[in-house]
Amino acid sequence: MTRTVLESKTKTVTIGFDEPFCVIGERINPTGRSKLAAELEQDDFTTVEKDALEQVACGAMVLDVNSGAVFKNKMADDPRYADNNFVEPPLMRELIKRIQALVDVPLCIDSSVPGALQEGLENCEGRPLLNSVTGEEERLEMILPLVKKYNVPVVAISNDDTGISEDPDVRFAVAKKIVERAADFGIPAHDIVVDPLVMPVGAMGTAGLQVFTLVRKLREELGVNTTCGASNISFGLPNRHGINAAFLPMAIAAGMTSAIMNPVRPVEMEAIRAANFLMNNDPNGSEWIKFSRVLDATKTGIPFPEASKASSDASGGRGGRRRRRA
Amino acid sequence: MTRTVLESKTKTVTIGFDEPFCVIGERINPTGRSKLAAELEQDDFTTVEKDALEQVACGAMVLDVNSGAVFKNKMADDPRYADNNFVEPPLMRELIKRIQALVDVPLCIDSSVPGALQEGLENCEGRPLLNSVTGEEERLEMILPLVKKYNVPVVAISNDDTGISEDPDVRFAVAKKIVERAADFGIPAHDIVVDPLVMPVGAMGTAGLQVFTLVRKLREELGVNTTCGASNISFGLPNRHGINAAFLPMAIAAGMTSAIMNPVRPVEMEAIRAANFLMNNDPNGSEWIKFSRVLDATKTGIPFPEASKASSDASGGRGGRRRRRA
Repeated sequence: MTRTVLESKTKTVTIGFDEPFCVIGERINPTGRSKLAAELEQDDFTTVEKDALEQVACGAMVLDVNSGAVFKNKMADDPRYADNNFVEPPLMRELIKRIQALVDVPLCIDSSVPGALQEGLENCEGRPLLNSVTGEEERLEMILPLVKKYNVPVVAISNDDTGISEDPDVRFAVAKKIVERAADFGIPAHDIVVDPLVMPVGAMGTAGLQVFTLVRKLREELGVNTTCGASNISFGLPNRHGINAAFLPMAIAAGMTSAIMNPVRPVEMEAIRAANFLMNNDPNGSEWIKFSRVLDATKTGIPFPEASKASSDASGGRGGRRRRRA
Repeated sequence: MTRTVLESKTKTVTIGFDEPFCVIGERINPTGRSKLAAELEQDDFTTVEKDALEQVACGAMVLDVNSGAVFKNKMADDPRYADNNFVEPPLMRELIKRIQALVDVPLCIDSSVPGALQEGLENCEGRPLLNSVTGEEERLEMILPLVKKYNVPVVAISNDDTGISEDPDVRFAVAKKIVERAADFGIPAHDIVVDPLVMPVGAMGTAGLQVFTLVRKLREELGVNTTCGASNISFGLPNRHGINAAFLPMAIAAGMTSAIMNPVRPVEMEAIRAANFLMNNDPNGSEWIKFSRVLDATKTGIPFPEASKASSDASGGRGGRRRRRA
């Protein structure tokens, strides 16, 4: 049984075939959020703190923390800020410090900068998820020793030095290569969470089918957990939340065990909670029934994050206490 | 390639693994709709006609026609009306006549009364679906000759003389028996649409997983199309449309090719249209984009059936012209 164990200060989250789907909140990411990047440049963490609290209230079990900010003003004054190797490590440290002070969920340390990953690993309480390694040689050689040294699980993205292949067999082969290389470092398959890469179905009609087939194969042949940037599937389409809300249950039925996504969207969260129930990972439907009350509250005009928070407060929060490390 | 071909007066609908999911409208059914039964008792077909038009406008590709009415007042005056063998055959004939006068989609003749099935088969234009045979000996001996004589496809429900088993292996065995008995009559597997029986997930936590496993097995081992009463899955649960809207894409991903359901519900229809796109059965997403405009219209306050009808009228209706019979 493949179990990828993540920990925060006091709580354990397990990604696994017989576990509820693991929702990794994607919001704390200044890439493509220029307003957030501008705030961070001014040491303003208001949005980060709001996003941390809201995402956890809405059902995020893990929070992705991406430090990929571009500090445009500072860069104009000091050329060192043009280099993300300079910008990201202290930013990652500060982000993690702020987030851990507010919420008690495992984090997913997300950066293309090795120094930022290292800072994240040094400053995380518990056992974070490292995001990410790819099949690129340089990246493998840089990231896998960190994974081994800190004994953490890692997201493995199925592209390599040749880029992202449109051929799912090539993407499977890249994933297999990463798992094998990790094994050479003594990293077990259950600590690798493969992202098979989700293409937009609007651009490639087979995008959905590719993911369902790959997830099944990754699970059956490599025994690994899987994740994805779920909203890629609906890129460029009208009413994209409707596409996401069908894609997620279909991917879950195929065996996908986590996604990096926006948990503040009720449509997608409803689809995931229903899918958990239908996969027999919600005993007696108690989570579904609790979530239905949140939806009922939103129908009276209460925003989804507030309704979720009220429900979460009433039930004393979710998630198990952290187990003793083995 | 398994293709179950249905026909109306001028149109062909194919149920198949590489076809858009076949939505069979369930509304024309007086069982459990006492208001509709009372109307039918008074020869009032207003609701039937409204339901026929609305369901087709909303995306039903086939209409189920169930004649199982109980005529309480007539029964009091004339004891013959206590017998559905007396009530249903003329009712089925009239229902079909009225529906065919209004809409041009294949019908699904649905009754427990052999005389009503026979009347339906005599009066349907094109090639209807017969609903249903079971694994019960008496039913097999009665229905399969009709299926053969009229050369129509049939819904095969996976229960037998011992009732409905909670064990999916038993339900698979019943389906297999029906397919084999049909073969003895010269009826091919592609003319059998198996209903593996959907239990409520609120009563049985494995209900969803059972269906996904059974559908895959029925497809791979027996090569048959499948259908189900989709809303059974959410029986007794709050916010049940949310459960249905996750169940349908998951069942479709597992290989389910049709369902008997209420097409006048936008949430479920959105899930199916998204699933069609994700299964690569909506070239260029053109159906999705058209449907998104219907959803946009409903957001301005236009009811879903009206918005659907406006869209359907604008595009000149859906569905292919009927091919010449082989």
